[in-house]
Amino acid sequence: MPQVIADISVSLDGFVAGPDDSSDRHALGIGGERLHQWLFELDTWRARAGREGGDRGVGADIMGEYFTRTGAAVIGRRMFDHGEKAWGDEPPFRVTVFVVTHRPLPPRPMSGGTHFEFVTGGVAEAVGRAVAAAGAQGKNVAVMGGGQVIAAALAAGVLDELRLHVVPVLLGGGRPLFAEPMDPAIALETTRVELSSGVTHVFHRVLK
Amino acid sequence: MPQVIADISVSLDGFVAGPDDSSDRHALGIGGERLHQWLFELDTWRARAGREGGDRGVGADIMGEYFTRTGAAVIGRRMFDHGEKAWGDEPPFRVTVFVVTHRPLPPRPMSGGTHFEFVTGGVAEAVGRAVAAAGAQGKNVAVMGGGQVIAAALAAGVLDELRLHVVPVLLGGGRPLFAEPMDPAIALETTRVELSSGVTHVFHRVLK
Repeated sequence: MPQVIADISVSLDGFVAGPDDSSDRHALGIGGERLHQWLFELDTWRARAGREGGDRGVGADIMGEYFTRTGAAVIGRRMFDHGEKAWGDEPPFRVTVFVVTHRPLPPRPMSGGTHFEFVTGGVAEAVGRAVAAAGAQGKNVAVMGGGQVIAAALAAGVLDELRLHVVPVLLGGGRPLFAEPMDPAIALETTRVELSSGVTHVFHRVLK
Repeated sequence: MPQVIADISVSLDGFVAGPDDSSDRHALGIGGERLHQWLFELDTWRARAGREGGDRGVGADIMGEYFTRTGAAVIGRRMFDHGEKAWGDEPPFRVTVFVVTHRPLPPRPMSGGTHFEFVTGGVAEAVGRAVAAAGAQGKNVAVMGGGQVIAAALAAGVLDELRLHVVPVLLGGGRPLFAEPMDPAIALETTRVELSSGVTHVFHRVLK
């Protein structure tokens, strides 16, 4: 059975995007790029774009394995809208990406293996379709954000694992990882922590 | 020179106390005791109360060393007011505790070495007095919370280290670690992470 794994970078003050992330000028919010810099500098990330060099270590290994083991992804519509331009014709996903939205678009095949499908039935339906797609390949599902989609997946009981990459920066505001109150009955267990490239990687299993 | 070390338990959703923590019934907020259970079960905590047994491991070692190396503490008035009854005649600090407050009380010596001093000049003054007291013993200063005092100490530039004990529970609301926007110019470096007793211990150095 595919594992459904959410993965997101978060600041020390709990934000997944900086302030003012609704403007075109700051798709990640002011300072939000500081949350993702570590990822772009990993050798396993650079190798996917055909570039050499980069940071090595446990964090690079974790992310390299995550990319390799992902057979389908789920993202929110905000992430799609803000990322679309930056990702260009060949987005970095290279799998089918199910976009949770209230405003469907036609399926959009891209170069490099990425294929966007728009799902209007909510996060549980998107995850269900991603599980079917990933399962056919013997791979996992990556729930890649934003925070709203990850929180919704956790609340809906469709996550197996939550991986946080905690970056020791203060954004001073922005979009919180958990913007809505979460149900205290949701039980998690921390299964692994690693400090690599200055970032704390914390793996949580969702107990069912 | 004494190190000024803030230390606090925080939930996965970023709270240092649960909802409704202003009532006498829930001094830690609803569910807030889940943040501290791990500490009370450590052998190094139990030993301070003359009790045997308890959890051993890296977390116990970290806290045992922290207790031993602390020569003075700083806490907020809310923490004092809410803790006073639970702590009883022999509070667990066993050092001079400088309480940051706008409503001073006379100094209050307790059994077991704890001595409360009330400081009205703000957190920087409280830390300054604690540094003097701890320095005379060759020990460190513990800034023990609540979140407001720790955030104020960080903002005032008087913290050397911030230690978070991240407990994988969701409180669904309550008192955030960082209730006010923090200055993004404050720079931190994560220096150590450990997973022990189910809790992620994350040490940050404040860069100056």
